[in-house]
Amino acid sequence: MVDLSQIRVAAERIAPYVHRTPVLTSHSLNAMFQAELYFKAENLQKVGAFKARGAVNAVMQLSEADAARGVATHSSGNHAQALAYAASLRSIPCTIVMPENSPQVKVAATRGYGADIVFCESTLQARETTLNAVLERTGATMIHPYDNDHVIAGQGTAALELLEERPELDVIMAPVGGGGLMSGTSIAARSLKPSITIIGAEPEEADDAARGLRSGTLLPPKPPTTIADGLRTALSRRTFDYLTANGVRMETCSEASIRRGLRLIMERVKTVIEPSAAVTIGVLLDHPDLVRGQRVGIILCGGNLDLEQAAGA
Amino acid sequence: MVDLSQIRVAAERIAPYVHRTPVLTSHSLNAMFQAELYFKAENLQKVGAFKARGAVNAVMQLSEADAARGVATHSSGNHAQALAYAASLRSIPCTIVMPENSPQVKVAATRGYGADIVFCESTLQARETTLNAVLERTGATMIHPYDNDHVIAGQGTAALELLEERPELDVIMAPVGGGGLMSGTSIAARSLKPSITIIGAEPEEADDAARGLRSGTLLPPKPPTTIADGLRTALSRRTFDYLTANGVRMETCSEASIRRGLRLIMERVKTVIEPSAAVTIGVLLDHPDLVRGQRVGIILCGGNLDLEQAAGA
Repeated sequence: MVDLSQIRVAAERIAPYVHRTPVLTSHSLNAMFQAELYFKAENLQKVGAFKARGAVNAVMQLSEADAARGVATHSSGNHAQALAYAASLRSIPCTIVMPENSPQVKVAATRGYGADIVFCESTLQARETTLNAVLERTGATMIHPYDNDHVIAGQGTAALELLEERPELDVIMAPVGGGGLMSGTSIAARSLKPSITIIGAEPEEADDAARGLRSGTLLPPKPPTTIADGLRTALSRRTFDYLTANGVRMETCSEASIRRGLRLIMERVKTVIEPSAAVTIGVLLDHPDLVRGQRVGIILCGGNLDLEQAAGA
Repeated sequence: MVDLSQIRVAAERIAPYVHRTPVLTSHSLNAMFQAELYFKAENLQKVGAFKARGAVNAVMQLSEADAARGVATHSSGNHAQALAYAASLRSIPCTIVMPENSPQVKVAATRGYGADIVFCESTLQARETTLNAVLERTGATMIHPYDNDHVIAGQGTAALELLEERPELDVIMAPVGGGGLMSGTSIAARSLKPSITIIGAEPEEADDAARGLRSGTLLPPKPPTTIADGLRTALSRRTFDYLTANGVRMETCSEASIRRGLRLIMERVKTVIEPSAAVTIGVLLDHPDLVRGQRVGIILCGGNLDLEQAAGA
């Protein structure tokens, strides 16, 4: 089980390789939401997302022998770049299994960190079969994007930094996809400040965690229709248990509010975020009384935006 | 004539009302351009543009009697919001003449600072006639967006801050529209560091300053075709003379490179800029040897982006 002490150790371990990201504010958003909002800008993190924290923490703990055989995962998202970045720091092999229809820009970015890309069909089964073949062939260590305690401890360092800088927070919010960020966030926040309200944000179109935590059951992912592509995955048993144990309250929002939240952050905070990072703002738009009058930390999880998405938003 | 001492006084005068903006960097852009780039983030300035500096500096120097009658200008761009913001600081009347086809978002933002908007036809003649009627009726002081020494001294404070923070710069770059920003930038930079190279960036589609400075003649604006809408105006005699006196070297770039520059800044620096702020990067793209191996300060002039523009870019 990950606890605060492991998150503190992770923070020291990864400090030379990741940014201590700034906390941004906006007078106009504070006025609009009648709250004090503090945005932890993980969009400005290495590889453009908090994922660098967890991947670096996991890769840095591999033994020399394991490291020499490399690491692998399947991902077309930010974890692919994060793992490639982490592997490059130790100059070890990294293989990423990606669906053949992955955006060219993501393929190029991952290759830019020196990873080998193995393409497969875009079904989950094809990804897993292909990854298993890679693991068998290379002896590489699989680094899961969220179902991994080292990864979760690394992701928790963002909330640790935010609460060190803003200990007066009443509320902390983060989006929930597979639950790695929220597992780490909720462990850190609940330990540092037992009274804090922890709110997980999900699209209505991908509300497996919200429904699952409410009913006490681990639910499968919904069809991937939401624009928040980082949140299309479902919780694992591990992350479900962390969220439950730390009293995470889930709230959802409409796709229209995600799009409006994306525009609000870009226009008022002038910082580039991806749709998954706008879901917290979407929740505030759809639930105007939720945090009124409170001091709210919000983790902006990533900034790898397809600009066409912003225009459609 | 504006000199460095007036820019220093302006910096003190406006300090309580504007941000000292951060200087941003990007490893990947440095690698791409084989130079050290330092981005002065005036997109994060009050009202989202450097224009707040000059407008505040001008409005703060009005006598009580003049201030009581208010200020006015014609603008559909960032100067409108900047002047409205400056007037709000002294709680004095502000009238902005805007073409009736101005984007609703700009109208709302300007009104948000408490300015009165007077609409007119979109010709330059209609704007001037309408503004003159406002000035006659109200006795307000006209604050020109760039043909005004107080405004120019205020705009120079961005370069002053940048060179205080990065005195080792070999080159300083800024876009050129009416030339207010570049007048202040070139006065500050040439005085602080006589050896510095000062590069003004213009779209090929709006290259009146580049052709004019080359031929020693003040030229009229070209038809407003460039996406960099802040740079569609031409130099005035005053700004032409400042640019000439301070040895500003003009360089131009294609519309395609402006669009590519916009995407590069958004994707790599994760900060939201408007097309006018991308013209400096466009120049670097079109002239790859221009600053190779050098330390280059680049003023990102504003961040009031229409997200549809970013997608088309």
